[in-house]
Amino acid sequence: MPLTKIALEEHFLDPRAAADVLADPDKLQRLSDGGGVMPEYYRPILGLLGDFDDQRLSTMDKFGIECAVLSLTAPGIQLVEGTADAIAMARDANDLLAEQVRKHPDRYRGFASVALQDPAAAAEELRRCVGELGFVGAMVNGYTATGDGGDAYLDDERFTGFWEAVADLGVPVYLHPRPAPPTDRHAIAGHPQLVGATWGFGVETATHTLRLIFSGLFDRFPGVQLVLGHLGEGLPAQLWRTQYCYDLNPFDKRIEKTLPEYFADNIHVTTSGNFSDQALITALLTVGGDRVLFSVDYPYADTELATTWLDRAPISESDRRKIAGGNARRLFGL
Amino acid sequence: MPLTKIALEEHFLDPRAAADVLADPDKLQRLSDGGGVMPEYYRPILGLLGDFDDQRLSTMDKFGIECAVLSLTAPGIQLVEGTADAIAMARDANDLLAEQVRKHPDRYRGFASVALQDPAAAAEELRRCVGELGFVGAMVNGYTATGDGGDAYLDDERFTGFWEAVADLGVPVYLHPRPAPPTDRHAIAGHPQLVGATWGFGVETATHTLRLIFSGLFDRFPGVQLVLGHLGEGLPAQLWRTQYCYDLNPFDKRIEKTLPEYFADNIHVTTSGNFSDQALITALLTVGGDRVLFSVDYPYADTELATTWLDRAPISESDRRKIAGGNARRLFGL
Amino acid sequence: MPLTKIALEEHFLDPRAAADVLADPDKLQRLSDGGGVMPEYYRPILGLLGDFDDQRLSTMDKFGIECAVLSLTAPGIQLVEGTADAIAMARDANDLLAEQVRKHPDRYRGFASVALQDPAAAAEELRRCVGELGFVGAMVNGYTATGDGGDAYLDDERFTGFWEAVADLGVPVYLHPRPAPPTDRHAIAGHPQLVGATWGFGVETATHTLRLIFSGLFDRFPGVQLVLGHLGEGLPAQLWRTQYCYDLNPFDKRIEKTLPEYFADNIHVTTSGNFSDQALITALLTVGGDRVLFSVDYPYADTELATTWLDRAPISESDRRKIAGGNARRLFGL
Amino acid sequence: MPLTKIALEEHFLDPRAAADVLADPDKLQRLSDGGGVMPEYYRPILGLLGDFDDQRLSTMDKFGIECAVLSLTAPGIQLVEGTADAIAMARDANDLLAEQVRKHPDRYRGFASVALQDPAAAAEELRRCVGELGFVGAMVNGYTATGDGGDAYLDDERFTGFWEAVADLGVPVYLHPRPAPPTDRHAIAGHPQLVGATWGFGVETATHTLRLIFSGLFDRFPGVQLVLGHLGEGLPAQLWRTQYCYDLNPFDKRIEKTLPEYFADNIHVTTSGNFSDQALITALLTVGGDRVLFSVDYPYADTELATTWLDRAPISESDRRKIAGGNARRLFGL
Ligand SMILES: [Zn+2]
Ligand SMILES: [Zn+2]
Ligand SMILES: [Zn+2]
Ligand SMILES: [Zn+2]
Repeated sequence: MPLTKIALEEHFLDPRAAADVLADPDKLQRLSDGGGVMPEYYRPILGLLGDFDDQRLSTMDKFGIECAVLSLTAPGIQLVEGTADAIAMARDANDLLAEQVRKHPDRYRGFASVALQDPAAAAEELRRCVGELGFVGAMVNGYTATGDGGDAYLDDERFTGFWEAVADLGVPVYLHPRPAPPTDRHAIAGHPQLVGATWGFGVETATHTLRLIFSGLFDRFPGVQLVLGHLGEGLPAQLWRTQYCYDLNPFDKRIEKTLPEYFADNIHVTTSGNFSDQALITALLTVGGDRVLFSVDYPYADTELATTWLDRAPISESDRRKIAGGNARRLFGL
Repeated sequence: MPLTKIALEEHFLDPRAAADVLADPDKLQRLSDGGGVMPEYYRPILGLLGDFDDQRLSTMDKFGIECAVLSLTAPGIQLVEGTADAIAMARDANDLLAEQVRKHPDRYRGFASVALQDPAAAAEELRRCVGELGFVGAMVNGYTATGDGGDAYLDDERFTGFWEAVADLGVPVYLHPRPAPPTDRHAIAGHPQLVGATWGFGVETATHTLRLIFSGLFDRFPGVQLVLGHLGEGLPAQLWRTQYCYDLNPFDKRIEKTLPEYFADNIHVTTSGNFSDQALITALLTVGGDRVLFSVDYPYADTELATTWLDRAPISESDRRKIAGGNARRLFGL
Repeated sequence: MPLTKIALEEHFLDPRAAADVLADPDKLQRLSDGGGVMPEYYRPILGLLGDFDDQRLSTMDKFGIECAVLSLTAPGIQLVEGTADAIAMARDANDLLAEQVRKHPDRYRGFASVALQDPAAAAEELRRCVGELGFVGAMVNGYTATGDGGDAYLDDERFTGFWEAVADLGVPVYLHPRPAPPTDRHAIAGHPQLVGATWGFGVETATHTLRLIFSGLFDRFPGVQLVLGHLGEGLPAQLWRTQYCYDLNPFDKRIEKTLPEYFADNIHVTTSGNFSDQALITALLTVGGDRVLFSVDYPYADTELATTWLDRAPISESDRRKIAGGNARRLFGL
Repeated sequence: MPLTKIALEEHFLDPRAAADVLADPDKLQRLSDGGGVMPEYYRPILGLLGDFDDQRLSTMDKFGIECAVLSLTAPGIQLVEGTADAIAMARDANDLLAEQVRKHPDRYRGFASVALQDPAAAAEELRRCVGELGFVGAMVNGYTATGDGGDAYLDDERFTGFWEAVADLGVPVYLHPRPAPPTDRHAIAGHPQLVGATWGFGVETATHTLRLIFSGLFDRFPGVQLVLGHLGEGLPAQLWRTQYCYDLNPFDKRIEKTLPEYFADNIHVTTSGNFSDQALITALLTVGGDRVLFSVDYPYADTELATTWLDRAPISESDRRKIAGGNARRLFGL
């Protein structure tokens, strides 16, 4: 019998927001463009994002997912320009999610949305979500609007207090993709298929992760755990080369350990949307079986494919059990 | 006894140009910045780039490299704004290289520099280099200035005639990294260590390769062979995910085959600057041992490290022989 | 569309011999015991072994096997005690096989059975099979009875003339398993499940292969090609340790190269009966993609499993094509 | 700085016994023959086996081995024909070892020798060794003489009480190689290099392990932990094929789980004498990083090679730390 599984990068949207988009072709087009997907792909996705009771649970049942950690779908709060709006939206999303978790305490857990537009508010909301709502971590969708038309990555000094809260609470931060800004798409110009999950998401999120490492974040907060989707967003296969070239040209070196060591101490990767034997083997040989965790990326990726793939992947039963759920139980205290 | 090797991504510079940079700290700084390296790293490199007879050959002798295919170092001709200048510079570089190949016919071969600022001139120069100078292919350093302040990637329609020449001559094109333009560095801003070989080069060149594939280039020219350095610039580990997401959101689909098939039919990867067992295994499991070729990236990477690594890498003797030189002999007719 | 395939370890039996066994429960029991299988497993197998036109071809059609190289099923001629009988039986089996190949020239090829009881006769019969019948090699089922109650492995001096014929004809020898003799089953005593393909076959055949290597056979006949089934009978994963310990205790060393080199020069492995991703990866990293070839081990193993496994195995398209058929076309001149 | 390591298959001999052998060429020859090694290899080994204070500790210091679990060198007690002698020899060896562990409590731990000639005495001695001497498990060198000229493997019913003691104490049993009996060497006849570590040891010990699994031992004692040296004695790469063929011919099936599951629940492997990247990768993909543990096989294998190999092996830092010592700390409570 296949192993039951815990899934970590599983998304939701307020069903009213989903209905709102579905009712307005322009909004649907805009949102699709923003995420690097096609409207005809996104339409059924929106329905599934807003559902908690019906198809979501029956899909989990059918394919043996005992528990899903839910998160507001990307780009979540990150691109909201107004700080007060962002704070309110995060709080609303978290409350809505908490209600669902309360309804299905054995099946759902939550990742907090945080309005990093106001880092102190984000820290406070994370404390509320973990302390009061029982959430198991935070989900951040890449760089965040700073309210002045700009944006900031998580290595920005303004986020020190947020990271202090993360370290203090001992919960992981899941760094989820967001597309590069429209002003910054030189290499993918004219190729809309490269904007999102097909390619651009990985590049953007892997780069963000390297910013965090090279900023010395994990030396200042050695216990902080970052979670990356998609088997590491392409980073695992590049660790050696990046370390080698960095050693040759260390510029403003601020870090104490090597990339493979940070991956052993501070980074986990999930299988969300990347059901590739070769990528899994690469992850096992660079990140290690203790730090690879199952995920689907529901409803963007296919649950049947995700689960049957892991059941048959060319790995040891020991690692399969850890990836299916053992590592998640340990990391999130499930 | 270790296998002798053929190396393919080995760079030179006109010794006068190298001396010119070394004599001018501002120029050195500017060029270092442009390539994502530090001046103190670049200074000794410049001396080695301009040398053909002394340290280059003795290094090759010492570490068993029987033959090196030389190419003008990046960014080569690609960023020259004036078209006439670009054409002249390419021709000069090729003539200088041809002279060195004539002097050391058993040890050196040449990749042509081409002024893609004028695609027809580039095609013509490639024909001259292959037909008259005996060169074995072309080296292109990413996107090329178009003379109007803009630039173009190799999937641009203007390059159809160039690709016709490539297909006609039956020689490979080595797609070498170039940094993203300074206006397009949102995700790496504030992190100079991410500009060049440490990270940005791979992202830029992998993206360029996907443009070529998704443009249908290899369907129009099914015999064309592209060579990527650095064990494939991070692409091999991402093939499955990119294909999966592309199938979900194919946008303006113009291609006939799958990414793994294009890698089996049209793409080779070299080991330049990426002496990683794990990346090599990933390449063997996604690209295959027939399409992995040894290279150093001299003088940017270390020849001793490159050669001793391959001699001990955890692969079969059959693949080791092909990677060391067998594949190069077949691909380049050496 | 999946790749069509060429299969190499595909067995037959004279339909009259098969019918004879099926009609006599004692014979069936004896033969089952001898091969380490259960009568209820062997009964349908016998029917399939004797069929050339019906289920064999439709199974090949259904799962995309364009060509099968057929061989008399184990133990074939090897355990026949009477030399004259052995010679006659080999000849009869070869003539029967040649007739089938003539009937289906696009679908079948043949491996010769050889009565090594008389090495000169075996060499002569191999010459006849290759020269007159168009066979593409020989199949030998382990050690051979010597007519005096003893037996001999293929490194025995008596077989020098046979290897000369092999080298002269330039055809591979497929070394197929035979169980250890009943007098030599100390470690498997009381465990009938360990006699045959489950375990004992691999041990016996791998040991036989090491005898050939350590005897210096491949130094005396550097062009000879040996083919092993079952992804190398467990040898590939042990090459390093065997070489290391041999270097520490070389005893009567008679060889010039290392085990990985002999595997690169003289040995091929097929996938017969071993449809394991991990074993395939091990083979790719030790034997190399040029020397791994598809096989089913029909009718003992399942054709659907064999073919769908290879179609989805986590390897490059380049290696998949070579394993599916490219290597066989080259090795056997198909 | 390289990781410090814990080593588990590290052997000793009573210095008086070692001196005794070294003084008698006939004894040296006999013992060398018995172990499949050459006298000139064995002579310096004997000196090192009898040393606890001098070269052993300085070698450990030099190459960063913080703790070695010591065991009486093979064949240990297993081939002693007289039961009373065997019991006395085991007790003496354990007392001698305990004294050394007391002298160097931070550097040495002990595996008990057990006289399985009398299973009840073996169980009792194991209880004494763990309970009174602080040993961390037992080392058994294959099949054991039964006192009547015969011998028995560990799946024999007579050992039920011994396994009860093992399960009760919660300590692992290290199954160490012993050569096949001289009467049972059909396939290696005439090839002395195949008797011992080069080949025969692995075959014998892997077969013994399969006996244990197929006997249902791990269903009756689901908590028992077996440790295999040499990266699993060749079993990991064969798990799929053995399971597949066993499913086709299950004979007297007495087991509840699959081979990969038993490897996840009951079996660990060490790196002793097998410093192969490919074999390590195979072990990681079949046994998993939680169940691979560092060992040297001192003084038979080279400590420098063992340690530098692990430090550079193409695996994650997470797995490297577990293999170097983390798994041993957990498994043996160090
Ligand atoms: Zn997602
Ligand atoms: Zn380069
Ligand atoms: Zn067979
Ligand atoms: Zn040992």
